[in-house]
Amino acid sequence: MKKLMNDPKNFVPEMMKGIELANPGKIKYVPAYNLVMRADAPNPNKVSILQGSGSGHEPAHIMIVGKGMLDGASPGDVFSAPPMDYVVESTKILNSPKGVLHIVNNYSGDRMSFEMATEMLDMEGVTVKTIFVDDDVAVQDSTWTVGRRGVAGNFFVIKAVGAAAENGASLDELVELGNKVNSMVRSMGMALTGCTPPAKGKPIFTLEEDEIEMGVGIHGEPGRARKKLVSANEIADEMLEAILTDRKPIPGSDDREAPIFNKGDEVALMINGLGGTPISELYIVYGHVHEELEKRGIKVWRSYVGEYCTSLEMAGMSITLCKVDDQLKDLFMAPAEIPIRVF
Amino acid sequence: MKKLMNDPKNFVPEMMKGIELANPGKIKYVPAYNLVMRADAPNPNKVSILQGSGSGHEPAHIMIVGKGMLDGASPGDVFSAPPMDYVVESTKILNSPKGVLHIVNNYSGDRMSFEMATEMLDMEGVTVKTIFVDDDVAVQDSTWTVGRRGVAGNFFVIKAVGAAAENGASLDELVELGNKVNSMVRSMGMALTGCTPPAKGKPIFTLEEDEIEMGVGIHGEPGRARKKLVSANEIADEMLEAILTDRKPIPGSDDREAPIFNKGDEVALMINGLGGTPISELYIVYGHVHEELEKRGIKVWRSYVGEYCTSLEMAGMSITLCKVDDQLKDLFMAPAEIPIRVF
Repeated sequence: MKKLMNDPKNFVPEMMKGIELANPGKIKYVPAYNLVMRADAPNPNKVSILQGSGSGHEPAHIMIVGKGMLDGASPGDVFSAPPMDYVVESTKILNSPKGVLHIVNNYSGDRMSFEMATEMLDMEGVTVKTIFVDDDVAVQDSTWTVGRRGVAGNFFVIKAVGAAAENGASLDELVELGNKVNSMVRSMGMALTGCTPPAKGKPIFTLEEDEIEMGVGIHGEPGRARKKLVSANEIADEMLEAILTDRKPIPGSDDREAPIFNKGDEVALMINGLGGTPISELYIVYGHVHEELEKRGIKVWRSYVGEYCTSLEMAGMSITLCKVDDQLKDLFMAPAEIPIRVF
Repeated sequence: MKKLMNDPKNFVPEMMKGIELANPGKIKYVPAYNLVMRADAPNPNKVSILQGSGSGHEPAHIMIVGKGMLDGASPGDVFSAPPMDYVVESTKILNSPKGVLHIVNNYSGDRMSFEMATEMLDMEGVTVKTIFVDDDVAVQDSTWTVGRRGVAGNFFVIKAVGAAAENGASLDELVELGNKVNSMVRSMGMALTGCTPPAKGKPIFTLEEDEIEMGVGIHGEPGRARKKLVSANEIADEMLEAILTDRKPIPGSDDREAPIFNKGDEVALMINGLGGTPISELYIVYGHVHEELEKRGIKVWRSYVGEYCTSLEMAGMSITLCKVDDQLKDLFMAPAEIPIRVF
């Protein structure tokens, strides 16, 4: 294992401390609950937004805490759901008269923590509602998931509800908005390599030099198929096809109805690096997917190319499409002030 | 070689095309000269700024073209200086009545291209001046360099002159400003792994599983020492010590005078990922360096943590310190609008 780290046990706390130091007066780190929060939260005039999930997906979610995005993130250790008490205590710290919104990627461990925490919080009179994100079209169930997994599409949910919360939206309005974005966003990922959690010291899976995992999960969960490395265009074509042929679920049924993305639609297009892939390669993929979408009469409204939701140093990428309307365009373009930034 | 790419020969052009597609109306790609430029350049009321260098260091420099930063970047192929005619023709395309500023990292190949181009352009009546950047304290001369190498500190030079150019500064003022920043910025890098240029197909160097290269160059040039992997704190301490004990050169002499960074100074602190290192590890390094600086009475004015100047998928990082005064603080905080962005 070759990492820039000190004691593996301190990997997550030292990273969090670094984020606090890098953002004085803006970000506060509460070690007892692995909580990274806005220094000025809670704001009694807005709903507070908390995301949990495991660590190891940075910048998601501890580096996107700030004005216009999350009020706090309290992840578990690398690739582990946050313990229930992190969720309970972090929610109490962030509690606002307007309520607290939990955003949870759909993994069984995360759901269990957040659902148990919500029961506890209900009993204590804290108003909490939850959005579950499940944008990954690769597989229906997976190693750690019943139903679909939540991956990088989560960023669009957070950006939309984060901006709306700044505008004073109520908890119910945010839940409705978040579910709307979740219904309009779809993703799929692939890996060129595995990755090594610090405390484990061994790769979570390995691929041969000519092998890739299509539809990989962000904790290395198996996807659709392990296959031979092909060109970036062929890889992107297969993933795009899976996204574009996906259909909306019919509530309460296993059936699915109309396609989500159709000719004439406008979309936000994200090419997300998984941690070890240079941005040069992401732009190669971006260019091809952009052209393929335009060929199909789907207009790319805005691009997002870089690292959003990663798996430590895994090489690979995911493609996310989010259908946009005027409401979402406004929310996606609203200002945000978070630790990750460029000049 | 495991990369997201199509034909290795098209690695750079396809990436550039991707940048153009991702930034409609803002970025223009001119394939004949590998030029990525602002769509609205040249602006007759401002000096145009062009950076060359090799590809493979993205986001430097083709992804930092835009308002407040570069007017254009015309790199060579991966790790290759731009051919002289790229520089000549790109400069002519960007030519402004206020002149053109070239920013060149100090490598022999890049210097030669830009110096020959400048002679050609002089003969054609195009007004060009050049800033050479050499912020790397690791080694005096190196594989591709006489004198010191230019690395991630270049970002601070570009940000300062880019902002000043928007404010209407003259070519001479920009040269003076750029040289000032170059005198106040120092960097050092280290590698955990090598990297593989697409057209070469083989790693430019390899390290054992327990080995690192301290002071590595951004093209894999040897640094100060190849040694055993130690903790992030020990690695950072050694690099920081090299930066803090560095002294200003005395013009026209091999001697050096006073230290650059002193108790009471304020600095911008950059922890730059080399392409394959996740941002979690960069923040672990950031936290330690921040605390070490504060212990020495050097105040961190602003943090920059992420990928700025990379070496394809190399794992590793560099530390850059830039001393700041009121002038530089204003310029570093000025708005910029470039392809790389987060929400």
